[in-house]
Amino acid sequence: MRFGPTILDQAEYLASCTHASAGITRTYLSRAHRKAGDFLVQLMQDAGMDAAYDAIGNVVGRYAGRDETAPVIVTGSHQDSVVDAGRYDGVFGILSPIACIADLNRRGVHPHNPIEVVAFGDEEGVRFEVTMIGSAGLAGSFDPSWLDRRDDQGTTMRDALLEFGGAPNEWATVRRDPSRIACFVESHIEQGPVLLNEGLPLGVVTAIAGVSRLRGTVLGIAGHAGTVPMPGRRDALAAAAEMALAIENLALKNEAPIVATVGKFAVAGGGAINVIPGRVEFTVDLRSPDDAIRRDAVAQLVDLCQAIAKRRQVQVEWQRFFDLDAAPCDEALQDQLAHAIKAHGVGVRRLPSGAGHDAMKFAGFARIAMLFVRCGNGGISHNPLEIMTAEDADIATRVLLSFFENFSSGSMVASHAA
Amino acid sequence: MRFGPTILDQAEYLASCTHASAGITRTYLSRAHRKAGDFLVQLMQDAGMDAAYDAIGNVVGRYAGRDETAPVIVTGSHQDSVVDAGRYDGVFGILSPIACIADLNRRGVHPHNPIEVVAFGDEEGVRFEVTMIGSAGLAGSFDPSWLDRRDDQGTTMRDALLEFGGAPNEWATVRRDPSRIACFVESHIEQGPVLLNEGLPLGVVTAIAGVSRLRGTVLGIAGHAGTVPMPGRRDALAAAAEMALAIENLALKNEAPIVATVGKFAVAGGGAINVIPGRVEFTVDLRSPDDAIRRDAVAQLVDLCQAIAKRRQVQVEWQRFFDLDAAPCDEALQDQLAHAIKAHGVGVRRLPSGAGHDAMKFAGFARIAMLFVRCGNGGISHNPLEIMTAEDADIATRVLLSFFENFSSGSMVASHAA
Repeated sequence: MRFGPTILDQAEYLASCTHASAGITRTYLSRAHRKAGDFLVQLMQDAGMDAAYDAIGNVVGRYAGRDETAPVIVTGSHQDSVVDAGRYDGVFGILSPIACIADLNRRGVHPHNPIEVVAFGDEEGVRFEVTMIGSAGLAGSFDPSWLDRRDDQGTTMRDALLEFGGAPNEWATVRRDPSRIACFVESHIEQGPVLLNEGLPLGVVTAIAGVSRLRGTVLGIAGHAGTVPMPGRRDALAAAAEMALAIENLALKNEAPIVATVGKFAVAGGGAINVIPGRVEFTVDLRSPDDAIRRDAVAQLVDLCQAIAKRRQVQVEWQRFFDLDAAPCDEALQDQLAHAIKAHGVGVRRLPSGAGHDAMKFAGFARIAMLFVRCGNGGISHNPLEIMTAEDADIATRVLLSFFENFSSGSMVASHAA
Repeated sequence: MRFGPTILDQAEYLASCTHASAGITRTYLSRAHRKAGDFLVQLMQDAGMDAAYDAIGNVVGRYAGRDETAPVIVTGSHQDSVVDAGRYDGVFGILSPIACIADLNRRGVHPHNPIEVVAFGDEEGVRFEVTMIGSAGLAGSFDPSWLDRRDDQGTTMRDALLEFGGAPNEWATVRRDPSRIACFVESHIEQGPVLLNEGLPLGVVTAIAGVSRLRGTVLGIAGHAGTVPMPGRRDALAAAAEMALAIENLALKNEAPIVATVGKFAVAGGGAINVIPGRVEFTVDLRSPDDAIRRDAVAQLVDLCQAIAKRRQVQVEWQRFFDLDAAPCDEALQDQLAHAIKAHGVGVRRLPSGAGHDAMKFAGFARIAMLFVRCGNGGISHNPLEIMTAEDADIATRVLLSFFENFSSGSMVASHAA
């Protein structure tokens, strides 16, 4: 294997860049970020790239194209992690393209377009409770009010950036001119079981799912568990339980690709063994790669829960606190990834991404593409038990390399023909 | 009205015996207990009783019978309260018999049997997390290891008793000789809506329900809310929600009187919006006046949940942590209460008590009887919104007075006949 073992070794080193006493926890602008970033700068330079931190703490490496005036292929993923994370989430999408560039450089090959590899400082949003800060910077959606956000210790993002060596006042310099970007392509571990269950190492992402998040509050009437007969009860928990099942069933029975999850669910005040719950709050996270289907499903779930509330003589109130549209991947780029996969003798599986990724921030700004890599161990991620094999890391890197070497954009083909 | 307004005024004074800055909270051996107890001693003495605290902080007043060698009619209820309690729970069962005795004394009437009114120091168990300490003392089930229990401040029950003026080492002196007790009769606000819904001021309790309490733990597999397709999920929350509904349905559809409540229900760690819950814990409180039906229902619910767990490929584990048998009320005493109610022109309703009461502690020790008084405001209790009308307090006290004046036990009838 050309690439697999080396990439896994590098991921192992990055796993040691952590501020947790045990496990992997690497947040934006931390010492662990600096340690990881310095390693990546060196790795990029060794691979023949110009590499440095940008003003907001992303590491950016550039490999010259044959035509330095051609739009840039931007690739990369995030260096930061959730608390007690896995080894490959984000990190693989940085190490894999660096390995490609190192190989090109070793062979003295320069593709037509320049290639930039970016290690985004933040995607997970653990430290400042805003996600995808790094990719927002490049894709023109960085909000300077974020600089005043504080972490758990009371430190602002501005001060953290200054201490890191960044330049908060120069955040706008990070933004790219979209006409100078050929595409954004991201390689990422699937974080789910679809490829694993189908015995495939790779997948081509069709779209990153849109998300709607709601908070439901069920108001019933609390009462003594022993003294209120069953028929007269207005039990908020029983009503909320029925709603949770209706929401599950709505997603399960839907013919379109949709997932719905009740992730938080709590009796007000924690509840008591001998008290009929009077108030229950729960959250719904509903995702689909098709925005119309998602919006329709949200409307349906509100109606279903309203009917349950009416029948049980309780009230249900909704707070719809987050909506993010789906990010469709460019079809021509999907075909180029599929072509590269086929060329390596692997079956092509196209699938939506249920999780959000840096590529989302580039949607509507540049053409986007994503390559998924099989996630072992049942598809577990955001967990130290996350697994990627050296074989899968290898084939994913060879496919990405083919993609770089054979990249064509509409305008490129035209200019070649000219 | 002879009794109603006075009793409500006295209850209002007891409501001022509280250690909460707002609301009513009166725990065992607190200053509020002392203030309430001193008031009750005075009230009993004014009513013609010998009255004093016993060794464990109960207030006991005795009204002589025509035959001082006859077994004693013991009556009373608890002086203590839950946190932010109502005005009548417990207290009414002390004030109502005192009002009866005051009336007898005013008329110079002494029933055949001596009557003792007891204001139990603890029933709710708020301070030392053991319930019905006062009635356990009289009924022979006081456990001296309780004296080493500590409250939230680290004070032992022993030290609290000493500070209160009690005599912890003399706890055994509180115990009665069951052959010297004619019966224990308790008057109590219903704490539920049954009498209210039927438009009746009073009810005769047939039995105090037995209780089984279980803790269920559902173990599924946590996962990313966006990346795990619906069909493969092992969602602990969805499984637990289905179990909660099955438990509700089991009680609702049962022809026998049974109530079941899921009161606590929590995702481990509080859950996260974007994570499929991997572990959920919930409690079940299941009650019936019929022990066989209760035991059968517990077995059924375990089977139902097991079937749900199997179908959903999750695990469910049970901890059955509390079981208390039902306390049936004496049928002859029920008839005497019913007779007294009828004599006052009120319809007789017999009903089980879903809540536990001091009378439970006397079950198997003495014959027990309970009179329920209508609970206003939808049947709400353990809440400052608990309501009892002066009219209901009045009729309940007149009925209790008739019961005292016309009391007959089997042995009494025999001795009269002799």
